[in-house]
Amino acid sequence: MHLITPEIKELIGEKDYTALQDIMTELLPPDTAELLQSLEHEEAIELIRSIPPDRFSEIFSYLDNEYQILILQDLTVGRLKNILNDMPSDERADLFLKITPELKKQLFSVMSEEEKKDVEKLMQYKEKTAGALMTTEFAKVNPNMTIEEATNILRKTALKRETIYYIYATDDRDRLLGVFSLKDLIVAPADKTVSEIMNSNLIKVFLHDDQEKVANVFKKYDLLALPVVDNFDNIHGIITVDDIVDVIEKEDTEDFHKMAAVGAMSNAYLKTPFSMVAKKRIGWLLLLLITYTVSAQLLEHYSYALESVIALAFFIPMLSGSAGNAGTQSATLVIRGLATGEIKFQEIFYIMKREIFMGLTLGTILGALGFLRAYLMQGNPMLGLTIGYSLALVITIATFIGSILPLILHKTGIDPAISAGPFLTTILDITSILIYFQVAKVLLGLVQ
Amino acid sequence: MHLITPEIKELIGEKDYTALQDIMTELLPPDTAELLQSLEHEEAIELIRSIPPDRFSEIFSYLDNEYQILILQDLTVGRLKNILNDMPSDERADLFLKITPELKKQLFSVMSEEEKKDVEKLMQYKEKTAGALMTTEFAKVNPNMTIEEATNILRKTALKRETIYYIYATDDRDRLLGVFSLKDLIVAPADKTVSEIMNSNLIKVFLHDDQEKVANVFKKYDLLALPVVDNFDNIHGIITVDDIVDVIEKEDTEDFHKMAAVGAMSNAYLKTPFSMVAKKRIGWLLLLLITYTVSAQLLEHYSYALESVIALAFFIPMLSGSAGNAGTQSATLVIRGLATGEIKFQEIFYIMKREIFMGLTLGTILGALGFLRAYLMQGNPMLGLTIGYSLALVITIATFIGSILPLILHKTGIDPAISAGPFLTTILDITSILIYFQVAKVLLGLVQ
Repeated sequence: MHLITPEIKELIGEKDYTALQDIMTELLPPDTAELLQSLEHEEAIELIRSIPPDRFSEIFSYLDNEYQILILQDLTVGRLKNILNDMPSDERADLFLKITPELKKQLFSVMSEEEKKDVEKLMQYKEKTAGALMTTEFAKVNPNMTIEEATNILRKTALKRETIYYIYATDDRDRLLGVFSLKDLIVAPADKTVSEIMNSNLIKVFLHDDQEKVANVFKKYDLLALPVVDNFDNIHGIITVDDIVDVIEKEDTEDFHKMAAVGAMSNAYLKTPFSMVAKKRIGWLLLLLITYTVSAQLLEHYSYALESVIALAFFIPMLSGSAGNAGTQSATLVIRGLATGEIKFQEIFYIMKREIFMGLTLGTILGALGFLRAYLMQGNPMLGLTIGYSLALVITIATFIGSILPLILHKTGIDPAISAGPFLTTILDITSILIYFQVAKVLLGLVQ
Repeated sequence: MHLITPEIKELIGEKDYTALQDIMTELLPPDTAELLQSLEHEEAIELIRSIPPDRFSEIFSYLDNEYQILILQDLTVGRLKNILNDMPSDERADLFLKITPELKKQLFSVMSEEEKKDVEKLMQYKEKTAGALMTTEFAKVNPNMTIEEATNILRKTALKRETIYYIYATDDRDRLLGVFSLKDLIVAPADKTVSEIMNSNLIKVFLHDDQEKVANVFKKYDLLALPVVDNFDNIHGIITVDDIVDVIEKEDTEDFHKMAAVGAMSNAYLKTPFSMVAKKRIGWLLLLLITYTVSAQLLEHYSYALESVIALAFFIPMLSGSAGNAGTQSATLVIRGLATGEIKFQEIFYIMKREIFMGLTLGTILGALGFLRAYLMQGNPMLGLTIGYSLALVITIATFIGSILPLILHKTGIDPAISAGPFLTTILDITSILIYFQVAKVLLGLVQ
């Protein structure tokens, strides 16, 4: 994409509008959006003038919210009206959530009553719920209509985007009765009624359902769209699969960041300002630094042991490191299982049992090797035993804690993703120092 | 789902087939698949008998490959034929990739020549490419047909699953000329031709394209399906969005596991046998244990320093831990940016510059705190300076390495995900010990 940016800049400079128009009709909307965002502001505004209003409305949807807000101010009232009317209702509400009250007032002044009501309604739903994700544009028909009547209605309405692949049958009070696909409609004889072809065994989600739950329903049933209902089974909107792809990606990114002890960022990395990234990172680093003072204190407490057997210090990284690695493995497996819906809290006892055996298996192997290594390096069998035995113990405990902690956090409503990575390794650092020196005290006969 | 398992078990025991049939018609295919997999083998076979063959074919697609193979042997030839005929062609090929040559021969004996050829063709594509993902079932028409003719053809064919929302216009040699949606078809006048309504500005992928690239095309253009072509622009199949949702999830899971130093598992955690999980985990743990012997050796080398200032040992976890945390943050931000397509290798110089500043910022803050902490705890200003200065240096380096390493791995074709987590922290462990003791030697005037 960036490849044609210089060429476009030149054409804008030369005011060669015919050439620009030719290129613009060739480019697909997402590509045009990318192009616009790579231009200087003035150039972008110039280029937008050579794009027909209808086409620009489509392009507008692919721009980042920040960029949308930036150029909104420079558009003519006519274009503004067009865009606000053509935007999918969920995206329009997202935009309104991010603008100032002044801009909102300005935009409302060019919108119809119906559009304003739609925005206000969608804005009320909590972020990351089905209500906030849904679009209010969808195809609905009466179940008593014939296929021919339904087809005619669909021809006249719902011409926007990928929202009419499923058609919903509702009664006069918008109660959801059934669903059928465009495919069903095409193959059905014209004189059958909607109620004859519709499927009333409906999969649906509720307005306040969490987006992660919605994503899991999509994945399980391989759907293109899902109706959103209230407690009275009235349909309020639909969620389409392209939005769910974005949700899955965003949720995963959030988990990745949390597991690396980076605070959640609403934007992509390179687009987030330096100071914001620094702020998101320093908080966790400081907290972790403070917990390391606990390990420093602990080591000071055991300095008598270090002074009599200095070699004990050599293996501190090996012990706390291995504990951290084994714990992170367990935690990641469980966190990912919870996120994809594979693991449920009820399985905690099975997982506990499995992970204890896993810890014992891994701990025994690593402990044996640690013993050999320390014995060969230092020629002291009791030191070797101290390392080996501590390693085995520490790894077993780390594996156990790593698997259980995310389950407990998940149960208490905290995102389990924060329990892997630095947070866990710091806890395990302290645990392993404690165990190591207790074992050393016994096996090496150290006294304070 | 599991809620009704006991009830079903009871009905199977009582051989109450009418009640079972009633429940089965109520349940959706993915739910029935889940139910079957929660039953004993004998019970499942019994239950399958009460499901009509057509419906069972649909359910079969939702079963795990392992389970499919398990029950294939117990099905009648009639059911087998039905299932193998009804399965989406991509899923059928996936199944064949996992079975023994004997079972393949057995299944081939009940399949038509055409089906066998289709399986052989799809099996030849490398895993994780567009060719391996695509299904060979899609709707195609000639561009010279009228809308009415095209509609009639669609009524007669392509009745399987969500594969006809886009219809492809091809010439006699299967060369891809254009695409239109079912929606376009419905709203178009019956006497127009396909070439008048089709869009010839096509988005497509090639047979050997990597699945991650395919996923990014889907995300960018908000598509429901994407045609797969060869170098001569002949269409071989289509990829549907539900498969892409699975791809995104699987790729992310793989990245999570790699970042936690767990070998890639083809299955979900709980379904992977204990011994397999242990094998996937022990490899990395052993490798990391060996690298810890390097840090042990290093510390032994510096034991003269530890002996003269034992307090140096207290802060080893703080230094290597903070380095690991800062490095993991950077690496995760870059790895995720690469995976979502936000970050490209060309931006390496910008990222380098940004991360050096980031490292200096974070390092200065943490270093100042580390200085204070060590000074207050030990009352030795030079020791405080050693900790503070080392922390600042180590964090700057860790931030830099953490951000650059994934970019370099990505460039050389290695999955950057392995560069975060334990692998990186181990490298940084060693780096931080080296820096720490070099700084200590200078500031504390230690000599060997």
